[in-house]
Amino acid sequence: MEKKITYIDEKLERNRKYSLTNGSLNFSLNVAGMNFTDKELDELKVKFTKAHAEMKKIEAGEIKNPDENRKVTHFTDRAAYPHEELFAEVESFAESIRNGEIKSSTGKKFKSAVINGIGGSALGPELMQLAINGPYWNEKTEFQRKNNLKIYFVDNTDPAGIRDILDVISLEETLVVNISKSGGTQETKNNIVAFDQAFERSGLKYNQHACAITMETSNLDREVKKNKWIKVFHMSESIGGRTSETSIVGHLPAALAGINFKSFIDGACKMDTWTRAPDYKKNPAYLLAAMWYLAGNGKGDKNMVIVPFSDRLISLPKYLQQLVMESLGKNKDRDGNVVNQGLNVFGNKGGTDAHAYIQQLNDGRNDFFITFIEVLKDSMNIPISEGITMGDYLHGFKAGLSNALEARKRQVIQIQINEVSSFSLGMLIALYERTVAVYAELININAFHQPGVQAYKLASKGIIKLMTELESLLYGLAPWIGTIDDFCKKTELESIKVEIEGVLAKFAENADTRSFNKFKITREWDNTKGWIYSLKKGNQ
Amino acid sequence: MEKKITYIDEKLERNRKYSLTNGSLNFSLNVAGMNFTDKELDELKVKFTKAHAEMKKIEAGEIKNPDENRKVTHFTDRAAYPHEELFAEVESFAESIRNGEIKSSTGKKFKSAVINGIGGSALGPELMQLAINGPYWNEKTEFQRKNNLKIYFVDNTDPAGIRDILDVISLEETLVVNISKSGGTQETKNNIVAFDQAFERSGLKYNQHACAITMETSNLDREVKKNKWIKVFHMSESIGGRTSETSIVGHLPAALAGINFKSFIDGACKMDTWTRAPDYKKNPAYLLAAMWYLAGNGKGDKNMVIVPFSDRLISLPKYLQQLVMESLGKNKDRDGNVVNQGLNVFGNKGGTDAHAYIQQLNDGRNDFFITFIEVLKDSMNIPISEGITMGDYLHGFKAGLSNALEARKRQVIQIQINEVSSFSLGMLIALYERTVAVYAELININAFHQPGVQAYKLASKGIIKLMTELESLLYGLAPWIGTIDDFCKKTELESIKVEIEGVLAKFAENADTRSFNKFKITREWDNTKGWIYSLKKGNQ
Repeated sequence: MEKKITYIDEKLERNRKYSLTNGSLNFSLNVAGMNFTDKELDELKVKFTKAHAEMKKIEAGEIKNPDENRKVTHFTDRAAYPHEELFAEVESFAESIRNGEIKSSTGKKFKSAVINGIGGSALGPELMQLAINGPYWNEKTEFQRKNNLKIYFVDNTDPAGIRDILDVISLEETLVVNISKSGGTQETKNNIVAFDQAFERSGLKYNQHACAITMETSNLDREVKKNKWIKVFHMSESIGGRTSETSIVGHLPAALAGINFKSFIDGACKMDTWTRAPDYKKNPAYLLAAMWYLAGNGKGDKNMVIVPFSDRLISLPKYLQQLVMESLGKNKDRDGNVVNQGLNVFGNKGGTDAHAYIQQLNDGRNDFFITFIEVLKDSMNIPISEGITMGDYLHGFKAGLSNALEARKRQVIQIQINEVSSFSLGMLIALYERTVAVYAELININAFHQPGVQAYKLASKGIIKLMTELESLLYGLAPWIGTIDDFCKKTELESIKVEIEGVLAKFAENADTRSFNKFKITREWDNTKGWIYSLKKGNQ
Repeated sequence: MEKKITYIDEKLERNRKYSLTNGSLNFSLNVAGMNFTDKELDELKVKFTKAHAEMKKIEAGEIKNPDENRKVTHFTDRAAYPHEELFAEVESFAESIRNGEIKSSTGKKFKSAVINGIGGSALGPELMQLAINGPYWNEKTEFQRKNNLKIYFVDNTDPAGIRDILDVISLEETLVVNISKSGGTQETKNNIVAFDQAFERSGLKYNQHACAITMETSNLDREVKKNKWIKVFHMSESIGGRTSETSIVGHLPAALAGINFKSFIDGACKMDTWTRAPDYKKNPAYLLAAMWYLAGNGKGDKNMVIVPFSDRLISLPKYLQQLVMESLGKNKDRDGNVVNQGLNVFGNKGGTDAHAYIQQLNDGRNDFFITFIEVLKDSMNIPISEGITMGDYLHGFKAGLSNALEARKRQVIQIQINEVSSFSLGMLIALYERTVAVYAELININAFHQPGVQAYKLASKGIIKLMTELESLLYGLAPWIGTIDDFCKKTELESIKVEIEGVLAKFAENADTRSFNKFKITREWDNTKGWIYSLKKGNQ
């Protein structure tokens, strides 16, 4: 009996000590369910004093992304943004689109917007749109949408994604918003080409349907000016893609969908103010970073599972996956030591996830810590039984799951907001942005570059180049029949057989719909020899 | 120079040895990019001989889920399913709904279906619908949909999810499909209540809009019969939720959306035949299981990242997350030893994910292996430049990323299909189902139960009970004002202060819309004291 009381006393004491609530903001963070001792947390003091000084340097405009010789201004720029001309310009542009002052190439009102962007240019707008306007926004009537535009996202370079959108939009009434900071992102460039073609096929002028967000003087900027697109908005060099949601990148898509972006910025700025507090035990971003650090030994040894108990926040884990993993997953620290850092993030939504992978979290590998995000206000009052509502059940599932996991010594972080709104979303994003930045200070890495994607981009360019070269080679070889082995022997390209196998498979499987330069390639399966490729001259 | 040739020779040799292709099925699996030696793979022979014998027992109908005293029949039942009466009944039911033979309560044709189910009753149908009909199915015209129904999923117990659907559907034309094997799933029960209320508010009879899939004699089965719902389809006890997509659970939602389910079953059965091969090096499911085993030391020490290069397959990682983690995340092995098994699964889609977390995979923690799923056929021919199409770029990004990751000694598995179709989806699901089952044999666990969710369900029930009790208690206490501390002191409930804090926050934040039993609770934030709760008697 004595023991039980001690355990409960300790639990209550930890809850008192390790929860940070700001009722004016309707926000709370509780880390009492993490496995750390007071002493362990205390020992981080020196690290946080140093990290805090570095965080001040970021906001003072020092070069904190030295590899790219850039300042990091997302924390500071957003406070000024609503008072800048650009902000008013975006709002007024969206209004002109909405009320038909700016018309399409055929004089129609724009009714749909296609947002073309990838990674940092897509995940934020996607999160915002789903959270604020819900999953069925495009199915709502114009009246329900208050004349705001339907929103479609093209966030890849898959022809299937393009075709799916073309199947349902009316191009005549469609505005395409192309977002690429550098203007050099291949996927986004491909999608520009794809839509340009689609408009042309429909006899419409693409330039009167297109606008862009990019850096001044980027290739995309030049393209906009050369082709006289409707509009270009410029974005700052010092704001990275994955932290650009509170900038113009988040603003324009939101404005076209009628989302209150000012309130989103307000939420972010309120959280910025709170998370500038030097005392790391009183600062939610620092306290959260301390938890990440202690849980994963400063090396990300535990996966971070993010579970918002809200259908509207199902994209949040994916957004945080980018923010966290692209920022923290680094080969070297700032002193050049190989550290192979990182912090894995996954999750979908609760209570649904309890019927998916909670079995493993509760019973299986104890290799994670979980963050619950609870939304207190129910969107609808649905009484179920004896005074208990559907929303109560959702709370019950969250609280029950926390208790079950903690009883098994699994680690739990709790965040509470009162509603899914632009404001609360602003708080959440600002909280995680600062947590990532300060955690990077704790482990001494640059959180603001992404050198690891270079290798991938180069290797991909190599494959594209190989494809071009193979096209000439295949033309020269036709007519011909044989296996990949035969082909590689004949062309003396055996050292890149794996790559060639991939390319020829791709070519052959699409031979029906595409036209190569005067040859045709097909393949047939042979149970003994495998794939037999055939090359014929001619276009048919 | 000599060294380079050796490396390339070795790479080519591994590719030859460790790729399994069946061109008739347009399916290939290549595990050459995994870090294992021939010897390590050879040493698994004894384990696989034993595992294969156990797999045969599953299909022979032995009790392989002893904890629940159940057979495991998803591998075998599906071969017979298309020839059973139930199959024809589902097809004919869907046709009657489609052509208006079965009408709604007001004599209208059904145009939308709400699929109400969670976990195993949702993830499969969601995957199938998105893969085959795409993300904008509900925005298509009736002509485009060929008179098939719009499909909405309710896969949680969040009032927001219900409200979002109610905002866009016409209840008069809506069929609700309620799926719960046991009939006891609380979330699904709540959603039945919510829709019942919604129909009643609209003056419509729910029973003429509802059908169900459940076990014979379940509570849900009784409810259907008592309330005279349109139809109930019975599902087998021996098929678990997470492996039920090839059964009636997948069939009915698919049939209502015009999906060729027979072809899906064909794909699954073809893969079943292939994966019954005893030689583990020739059997794709066994070879895949061997990779999981070797990569994670038989303990899931590496996360499994799943990246389909296809916009239509973005739900696949989430589907596999459940299939794998709920099956393998187990506390004890079959001999009762505590093993805390598991295998983490996450991922979204490529090339998009390259702009999200590939930075970490390439540069950061080497704590994963990645599986690429490539779709060879492009849905649309979109020429980009110099004979290179958008689809070529997607291939280039996949092949480039593989090369970049392998150059950094990251581990890669490649799967190739020719198109996203019912048939190929059937193959994929059957492949992973068998891989999970045989991997469970390798590590000696029961893959077919989920004891770990019991603790969570019980704990959640405890919270719901507490909510009911607190309602009476609050009524008795009103009028009253004070903090949570005050409340707990007064009621002598300090030992459960954390739980009470959660419940009162939930109650107070929803006081505006809900009616408690003759009292009202609100809260105000005080910067010094925290939340101050007020209780008043009366309903207003």
